[in-house]
Amino acid sequence: MSDEIKIQLTTTPGNKPDSSNLSFGKYFTDHMFIMDYHIDKGWHDPRIVPYAPISLDPAAMVFHYGQAVFEGMKAYLTDSGKVLLFRPDKNMKRLNQSNDRLGIPEIDGDFVIQAIKTLIEIDKSWIPTEKGTSLYVRPFIIATEPCLGVRSSYTYQFIVILSPVGAYYSGGLEPVKINVESSYTRAVRGGIGYAKAAGNYAASIKAQEIAKKEGFSQVLWLDAIEKKYIEEVGSMNIFFKIGGTVITPEINGSILEGVTRDSVITLLKDWGVPVEERKISIEEIYEAYKQGQLEEVFGTGTAAVISPVGELHWNEHTMHVNEGKIGELSQKLYDTITGLQSGSLPDPRNWTVTF
Amino acid sequence: MSDEIKIQLTTTPGNKPDSSNLSFGKYFTDHMFIMDYHIDKGWHDPRIVPYAPISLDPAAMVFHYGQAVFEGMKAYLTDSGKVLLFRPDKNMKRLNQSNDRLGIPEIDGDFVIQAIKTLIEIDKSWIPTEKGTSLYVRPFIIATEPCLGVRSSYTYQFIVILSPVGAYYSGGLEPVKINVESSYTRAVRGGIGYAKAAGNYAASIKAQEIAKKEGFSQVLWLDAIEKKYIEEVGSMNIFFKIGGTVITPEINGSILEGVTRDSVITLLKDWGVPVEERKISIEEIYEAYKQGQLEEVFGTGTAAVISPVGELHWNEHTMHVNEGKIGELSQKLYDTITGLQSGSLPDPRNWTVTF
Repeated sequence: MSDEIKIQLTTTPGNKPDSSNLSFGKYFTDHMFIMDYHIDKGWHDPRIVPYAPISLDPAAMVFHYGQAVFEGMKAYLTDSGKVLLFRPDKNMKRLNQSNDRLGIPEIDGDFVIQAIKTLIEIDKSWIPTEKGTSLYVRPFIIATEPCLGVRSSYTYQFIVILSPVGAYYSGGLEPVKINVESSYTRAVRGGIGYAKAAGNYAASIKAQEIAKKEGFSQVLWLDAIEKKYIEEVGSMNIFFKIGGTVITPEINGSILEGVTRDSVITLLKDWGVPVEERKISIEEIYEAYKQGQLEEVFGTGTAAVISPVGELHWNEHTMHVNEGKIGELSQKLYDTITGLQSGSLPDPRNWTVTF
Repeated sequence: MSDEIKIQLTTTPGNKPDSSNLSFGKYFTDHMFIMDYHIDKGWHDPRIVPYAPISLDPAAMVFHYGQAVFEGMKAYLTDSGKVLLFRPDKNMKRLNQSNDRLGIPEIDGDFVIQAIKTLIEIDKSWIPTEKGTSLYVRPFIIATEPCLGVRSSYTYQFIVILSPVGAYYSGGLEPVKINVESSYTRAVRGGIGYAKAAGNYAASIKAQEIAKKEGFSQVLWLDAIEKKYIEEVGSMNIFFKIGGTVITPEINGSILEGVTRDSVITLLKDWGVPVEERKISIEEIYEAYKQGQLEEVFGTGTAAVISPVGELHWNEHTMHVNEGKIGELSQKLYDTITGLQSGSLPDPRNWTVTF
């Protein structure tokens, strides 16, 4: 991709939302990045255009066979007016892993990061600066060929949209109630669970809605094979602090390889906190709870960063974690990662990209 | 849904494709049916409009979280100028099962069948009449709300498009080569395998493409848990005739409840052919093959109707089925079902809807 990015600016800039009332992914900035793919031409025609509806043939394959992958990142504005992105190379690597699994052509990660920077630069005035807010960056790829045969599409669009966001959970860093899902499954080995693919989320919605009606924020997914081992929570990775050791499910093909997950593991190692990536069963967690060893539970993801779990329900058992309060380590991880992301803490690993 | 269907006819009718060279799902008729859903209004504004691109916000949830389901049916034109649809009530029932699993609101099946009839009536001149051709009907539902939070969309579009099609396999009723897939999986219990959801197809593409490169038409999916029991072939149900008995995997939550599958089972029972719906392992099939008992293998689906399997590859084993020729029963089922669908055979069960 050596094409230059064409830029067409809006003539009707939108009104920026009140930054104290952003919620998540509801407002979008004035511009978006688009590039097209054709099997004979590769990725081409990269351009920044005014944010507007896209027009697709009703037979476009994304509507029928779900070839759609995405990424999520956050951009922060520093006091000195610089923009920060957190580990975008990891998102590009994962996007190409998702592409590979879904039969979607590879993208040039460096070029896309450059395109994202250019787009954010143009819509920089949309980056909110209140505590807990940021500019959410959503790159996604959809199959656009109008054809009803089941195969990889010959054409795609890669699009990046930007959304000023508040905290993912309106309650802020409040511990949430989680239900261990025992009927529905999210993914299985050999499937697409490790890909950030639209279909994984579609599969998760029903169980989430049932859990919400029962008063839970999210579901905790167990493995589909033995219905025993922990996979993910909602659309986040999950960590358990048990007797001083932090345990998180190992990468196994059916869970997402989270960027925040990787950052948490790295920070814990830096801090000398024992951390294990391994299979962990719900029984083991319940046993630890009964012995008073289950100290903290938290989810990790780009949207929420760290989401402490205050209550964990599993069949007839209710586990109250850390008396329903945010754990010390959860809080430290949240403060450190958001501090790094927003540029208020020194960044010895050069995780942030500044421009 | 008591709304009347508004009709806006095209002023620029398209050219009809050469019916000897239709392939599958490449050409579309002059009109389409659309209706909208809003959480506060339910399904509303049913209309038939000229076939045209649809316009969606780039944040529309279908692009990100894959809430998308579909159906497939075929319409035939009889010599006397009547249109035939095959068991459309079954498709409507399954569409609502898919909706339920994906968190999409229920549709009124009777109303939708009426809408489909009206649409086909308008585009009746597009129904091809050469042997093996038909008008493929593709109803589908997509989530349209522009929002990046993971939950059920508050708005949807239900759309029906029509495509004059030839045989699904360009080779006609030629036996195909199938590879038993041992790494990738399509679906698992607790997942969305039984739903006709876009995400299931997205998950299947990579294995299919690998199989194609190796010279196979389709993959045969094994269950995700034990990697042992037969699930489906490509996007079809599958049947094995072993020692005079026809065996097909039972409905288990991870395979699709095919309309053609049901029709085949019913016909076999009518004909006094022993038929079993049960778990069947790939080992059992290989054992039957070694003993000279594997008489016929065929896939069933709306697109291909009956697709005989001539060769089945499983790891280092190659099973040649019926010397690579179409089995007698496969041929009889194909002739009977297409005969019923096209109105050339009497229809004692009233499977076809005529208008």
